[in-house]
Amino acid sequence: MNNPITIKILAKALSLSPGTISKALKDSYEISKETKEKVQALAKALNYVPNPYASSLRKKISNTIAVVLPEVADSLFSQAINGIESIAQDNGYHVLIYLTHESLAREETILEQFQSGRVDGILMSVSAETSHSEHIEKIIASGIPVVFFDRICENVETACVTTDDLESGYKAACHLLEQGCKKIAFLSISNKLAIINMRLEGFNKALKETGIKTGAVKICSNNEAECAKTIKKLLMSKNRPDGIIASAEKLAAAVYTVSSEINLGIPADIKVIAFSNLQIASLLNPPLSTITQPAFEIGRTAATLLFKSLEKSKFNLKDERIVIPSLLIKRASTVN
Amino acid sequence: MNNPITIKILAKALSLSPGTISKALKDSYEISKETKEKVQALAKALNYVPNPYASSLRKKISNTIAVVLPEVADSLFSQAINGIESIAQDNGYHVLIYLTHESLAREETILEQFQSGRVDGILMSVSAETSHSEHIEKIIASGIPVVFFDRICENVETACVTTDDLESGYKAACHLLEQGCKKIAFLSISNKLAIINMRLEGFNKALKETGIKTGAVKICSNNEAECAKTIKKLLMSKNRPDGIIASAEKLAAAVYTVSSEINLGIPADIKVIAFSNLQIASLLNPPLSTITQPAFEIGRTAATLLFKSLEKSKFNLKDERIVIPSLLIKRASTVN
Repeated sequence: MNNPITIKILAKALSLSPGTISKALKDSYEISKETKEKVQALAKALNYVPNPYASSLRKKISNTIAVVLPEVADSLFSQAINGIESIAQDNGYHVLIYLTHESLAREETILEQFQSGRVDGILMSVSAETSHSEHIEKIIASGIPVVFFDRICENVETACVTTDDLESGYKAACHLLEQGCKKIAFLSISNKLAIINMRLEGFNKALKETGIKTGAVKICSNNEAECAKTIKKLLMSKNRPDGIIASAEKLAAAVYTVSSEINLGIPADIKVIAFSNLQIASLLNPPLSTITQPAFEIGRTAATLLFKSLEKSKFNLKDERIVIPSLLIKRASTVN
Repeated sequence: MNNPITIKILAKALSLSPGTISKALKDSYEISKETKEKVQALAKALNYVPNPYASSLRKKISNTIAVVLPEVADSLFSQAINGIESIAQDNGYHVLIYLTHESLAREETILEQFQSGRVDGILMSVSAETSHSEHIEKIIASGIPVVFFDRICENVETACVTTDDLESGYKAACHLLEQGCKKIAFLSISNKLAIINMRLEGFNKALKETGIKTGAVKICSNNEAECAKTIKKLLMSKNRPDGIIASAEKLAAAVYTVSSEINLGIPADIKVIAFSNLQIASLLNPPLSTITQPAFEIGRTAATLLFKSLEKSKFNLKDERIVIPSLLIKRASTVN
């Protein structure tokens, strides 16, 4: 950037103090009409734009929040972003989206950047690899508030907005058991994510109540080909499951594709339910039963908490743990 | 590069002609001592550098590029983002994603922000409302390079990476005609977008070749309920089409939903093909025929061009118009 026009330059050009320039630009009553006109005319002629970094250093306000999340090719995240933006717009804030692509290293690099005061606050859904939280605690310690949504980091003391993951895992398993499933497998995307472990806990609770000791749990890779391989191996095994709980929508799509490949009928041979907000779930063949999360609402609520803490320094994010219930929608993929 | 000081700016600031400024800076005998002092003082205060190739002095200040696009809940955009990020990561750059939600006003506000030097370059897919380009031309004039991908702005002279929209529209229409369709409707999301108009041109070309004068064109709102209403009205009209080309995937989903509501069979009563990169298109009921765009490749190519221009000041973005072909994939939604 060559010669950005700053308040300092305007001050130098007009032989006035930076404070006078700043006040003149804000049309302060403290400054004479003549000076204001002179300053504003030069600022206009030079196309002066207030610098977000400079103002963030001065007032710690960039009017920008960051959303850090794994990916956008997932209906939960894309709907949560819309919820966040609806609130940010009302507050006159800009939203920057940063993708970690499920990598802890990228997540750390992104948070590192924020140390320079680029944003006023952060909304975050952690990566599938996130096993420690130093990088998050460091940014909070530097004075930038963080609110978790959906994928939280349990040992960080700050606001969390999630859905009822344990109950949802329990409900999904109960539904499959009611439909006659005897061998249910749980497809996971990570053994590090708190929300997935909660869903798994609900799943195991339902199995225990029915006298089944434990269900199969498969952790599927973020790599599409590897993920398909894991699922194919499971569905071709001697001890093939008759019910699947997919903890993310991309896993359900993979189950559909593999089932079609190896001529397994859904729901006749295998019943499938997924955690998904896919609006076209009902248009799939067969229509997919889902645990539908209140994604827009989760985003909206998380953003509301963040703005409360930005507005009121006394608002304590640590006290906020909001749980918004999910909805079980039964469709043909689980009902014969 | 933000606000480079030029002779023109100095002239404007001092209400003098550019010629006078130029001569004053060269200490010409033609200019009065008083004027020369005034000009030279301002030039010094503003750190004016007399360099016609000022852009070659551009410094990589933020190591950040922006992606400005309508939404992320569309498979084309989410895959293009992945393509962009793959290149940005190789170059050690960060990617910020800004969503316009199809609003020209938001697009203008976002670009306005960049004047302050927050990013080194911009990759952009314009909103459905974008009918003029002053905001884009202004940011390019300020020295920040812009590369368009997918949704270009035709009257802005800079690099564009698109797919073969005219040919794709033509191929989609020919396919429906071959399948026996007599009344084909084209569902559009905007009458302002160059790429949609290209697809429409291809559509009309195919119809004309078959002796059909013109096809129906419906512009569908970005509002989901209004969009469904438009489609329902079309599909319940006396002159109901027997073939649909959906220029965006959300329109295809709406056609599926409405058809199911009013008991129209796909493909028996109505055949549907969509511009879409939806990975689960083949899992829909019936599987959806698509014009599949090379979305990842479009993002990757656009980012590659942007980094070339950031690295080499002589690289001329204006000369770059890259077209990557789409693929017609025939599935059961168009084949009886």
